[in-house]
Amino acid sequence: MAEKGVTPRSEDYSRWYTDVVQKAEMADYSPVKGCMVIRPYGYTLWENIQAALDRRFKETGHVNAYFPLFIPMSFLQREAEQFEGFAPELAVVTHGGGKELEEPLVVRPTSETIIGHMYSQWVRSYRDLPILINQWANVVRWELRTRLFLRTTEFLWQEGHTAHATQQEAEEETRRMLGVYADFAINEAAIPVVQGQKSDREKFAGAVASYTIEAMMGNGWALQSGTSHFLGQNFGRAFDIKFLNQKNEMDYAWTTSWGLSTRMVGAIIMAHGDDQGLILPPRLAPHQVVIVPIWRKDAERAAVLALAGQVAATLKAAGVRVKLDDRDEVSTGFKFNDWELRGVPLRIEIGPRDVEQNAVVFARRDILGKEGKTFGVPVAGIVQAAQDMLTTIQAAMLRRATEFREANTRTVQSYDEFKQTFEGPGGFIRVHWAGSNEDEDRIKEETKATIRCFPFDKPEGEGVCFFTGKRTERVAIFARAY
Amino acid sequence: MAEKGVTPRSEDYSRWYTDVVQKAEMADYSPVKGCMVIRPYGYTLWENIQAALDRRFKETGHVNAYFPLFIPMSFLQREAEQFEGFAPELAVVTHGGGKELEEPLVVRPTSETIIGHMYSQWVRSYRDLPILINQWANVVRWELRTRLFLRTTEFLWQEGHTAHATQQEAEEETRRMLGVYADFAINEAAIPVVQGQKSDREKFAGAVASYTIEAMMGNGWALQSGTSHFLGQNFGRAFDIKFLNQKNEMDYAWTTSWGLSTRMVGAIIMAHGDDQGLILPPRLAPHQVVIVPIWRKDAERAAVLALAGQVAATLKAAGVRVKLDDRDEVSTGFKFNDWELRGVPLRIEIGPRDVEQNAVVFARRDILGKEGKTFGVPVAGIVQAAQDMLTTIQAAMLRRATEFREANTRTVQSYDEFKQTFEGPGGFIRVHWAGSNEDEDRIKEETKATIRCFPFDKPEGEGVCFFTGKRTERVAIFARAY
Repeated sequence: MAEKGVTPRSEDYSRWYTDVVQKAEMADYSPVKGCMVIRPYGYTLWENIQAALDRRFKETGHVNAYFPLFIPMSFLQREAEQFEGFAPELAVVTHGGGKELEEPLVVRPTSETIIGHMYSQWVRSYRDLPILINQWANVVRWELRTRLFLRTTEFLWQEGHTAHATQQEAEEETRRMLGVYADFAINEAAIPVVQGQKSDREKFAGAVASYTIEAMMGNGWALQSGTSHFLGQNFGRAFDIKFLNQKNEMDYAWTTSWGLSTRMVGAIIMAHGDDQGLILPPRLAPHQVVIVPIWRKDAERAAVLALAGQVAATLKAAGVRVKLDDRDEVSTGFKFNDWELRGVPLRIEIGPRDVEQNAVVFARRDILGKEGKTFGVPVAGIVQAAQDMLTTIQAAMLRRATEFREANTRTVQSYDEFKQTFEGPGGFIRVHWAGSNEDEDRIKEETKATIRCFPFDKPEGEGVCFFTGKRTERVAIFARAY
Repeated sequence: MAEKGVTPRSEDYSRWYTDVVQKAEMADYSPVKGCMVIRPYGYTLWENIQAALDRRFKETGHVNAYFPLFIPMSFLQREAEQFEGFAPELAVVTHGGGKELEEPLVVRPTSETIIGHMYSQWVRSYRDLPILINQWANVVRWELRTRLFLRTTEFLWQEGHTAHATQQEAEEETRRMLGVYADFAINEAAIPVVQGQKSDREKFAGAVASYTIEAMMGNGWALQSGTSHFLGQNFGRAFDIKFLNQKNEMDYAWTTSWGLSTRMVGAIIMAHGDDQGLILPPRLAPHQVVIVPIWRKDAERAAVLALAGQVAATLKAAGVRVKLDDRDEVSTGFKFNDWELRGVPLRIEIGPRDVEQNAVVFARRDILGKEGKTFGVPVAGIVQAAQDMLTTIQAAMLRRATEFREANTRTVQSYDEFKQTFEGPGGFIRVHWAGSNEDEDRIKEETKATIRCFPFDKPEGEGVCFFTGKRTERVAIFARAY
């Protein structure tokens, strides 16, 4: 049973987040440092995310498979950049079956290496390509500072790993999957992500080019919400994925990888939530509708519950994810707070007067109070009315998040103005950028802001870099990020 | 592309199994000892198993969640029996983030302990019970002798963990979930499993009582295919899952656990396969139907492919999992062998004469040759005809496996006869049993046969134990087992 008392978002964003995650029973801390327990309500949201992504992966020709959790340490060392990037974060199994192992095994932080090895066994000719495989799995990266869903030592994700005969095909795949992520984020999670390329400093260890979808959270910070990497022939060479091409010449496979994790649950919480708690997008919400029957006298109870049960059954039969809250031991006010905290998009209230009129009341989670209510919704047309309302809420959430992002995306003319912006309102700063990697490092050190991406969507032609004064076509988005 | 040359089943059952698994591209060995790669074809079968089980779990009121991969060593030590059982099989993480850990972490071999700990945090009163949670996860048990799907160091499974206010409720849950497994095995996997209770020697480490579904493989050996455990208050006490009951007294929760793993993929392969390879039950098969277009002259090609494409689209739209094999580079004979190896239940052949007649040919995987063919199936009624044929094949597979099990279930009057049976035909031996644990040990040592279960389905009244000569109501099934 949920307790009340979420720290207001406006007061302390960070505590609000932790409160909401725990009180809405999305996740809990575990006795293992840095690892979390994903509770049923949070896991159901993840299952809905999985279903929405998996459908898109299969529609784009991918199949799922499963590779070992353990990777021999020597495998990881074969691709130098990736090893360097991940070495500080590894969990290492040194003992198995009561004996010390001859070679330590790493718990996978990501699977390019072991999958690369397997692909080298399976590929002989261009006819064996492309390989379009995805894996749903747990991975482990030893993190010092963790936060539920956003950064945990163990997390759940999917990792796509594809191998292609040509560079062009691999680059197209990398961009296609970024597009799949963006489509998912926008149309399922109602999060208007920005698509773009990562800077050299921020790209994936071992990648030639990394692409990202960046989301704006309610405090103006950025959250990297999914990434897609063009790996060139780096892993093809390191793992000897050789094949005979159409000209009958030996070549190395071009590979990609792309991943989206339980971090997305954190993105949804932080992009949409308010002082009352979660606001979940209808397309992903574990319960799309909660029905709260209301009565004062015992004489009213049976009739109210009968109608509530009937409405629940009708909606369920139509495929709406509906929850009937017929608890006796808590008050109506408690139920309202509880389901608001849990972010159920649509509440249906049914009282004695509604029974008389054979109608119900709709109350929107995204617009609290009278303004978000619709009275006298006829039971006869309840399925269509509920589905329409869920569509309306989904669209309104995306619109609100988009407006918020736009209102909090700024430009600056100078580094002074840049620094003032991050001392003040924050958000995304969208500027022309001709700085070096070292310039980027300096900005990060001085302002904690990083280049989130070079967005695909940018004006034609050159502008002046706010930092170097040079003219450039390149546009960057800077932000503080989780 | 699959190669030919599966070792005949009759010649060497064990090599046949390994050949089939690899050549049908179900799984592959990995460079990590004892760990396997589940390839897309095998993983899709597992996804179908997952969907069929998950639906049943949700229908019986369960929800999914996720608990950490790592368990502190001290947690495992708290329930003495489970620790003793699993200690020799543990994989241990001793280093994380470049440092030696203060307390080693075990990679979960099963999750009663960490889940028990979390339940103790969540439960205060009988109102918080029951907790009905399932987890889909990977687990690790260090195995010396491994076999693809049947026994691997890492495997995928689901583990249900429930907590209840009363013993009766927990016992009912244990039996309910065994029933869910049996229903799944019989009606989805077409495997006529025997339900029963495990002997003391074979029960789960930490359980009060273990129940099992036992399947008969094609060589007469048994495969334990799913287990459900009544844990009493063992874990409730060890992890302090205390609650205030309805009488306002403190009590410990009664818990259960139940699991079914990727072993089931091995069960399906071994229960149904033949010399030609796999025979997959239609309800779980990745491809239920494969369409093979056949032509000799180029002039025929377009018309044949057009009809094949049309039939494929029609079946797909009706929800049939259909694969169109329009490869140009391999022969029709190769395709037939290839899909027979992979066990696709129904092949649809379409040639020039079929195009003229607007009809197709059905060829059953479970009955090879002319006997399994239906000629002139009209395209107009193809959906119904295919669905009916799949239903027929599913039923025939269950019937055949049931007949095989019955033909290979024997009784004996003496221990000599018992030994002769296992030197000869093998199979299940179904006998009255009044022996001790030590008698069971001796039989295992001398014959390699173990008590698979005390079956629920047994005659009323007493009989004579073949081993001790004592009269008893108890019936046991003995078999050699994987």
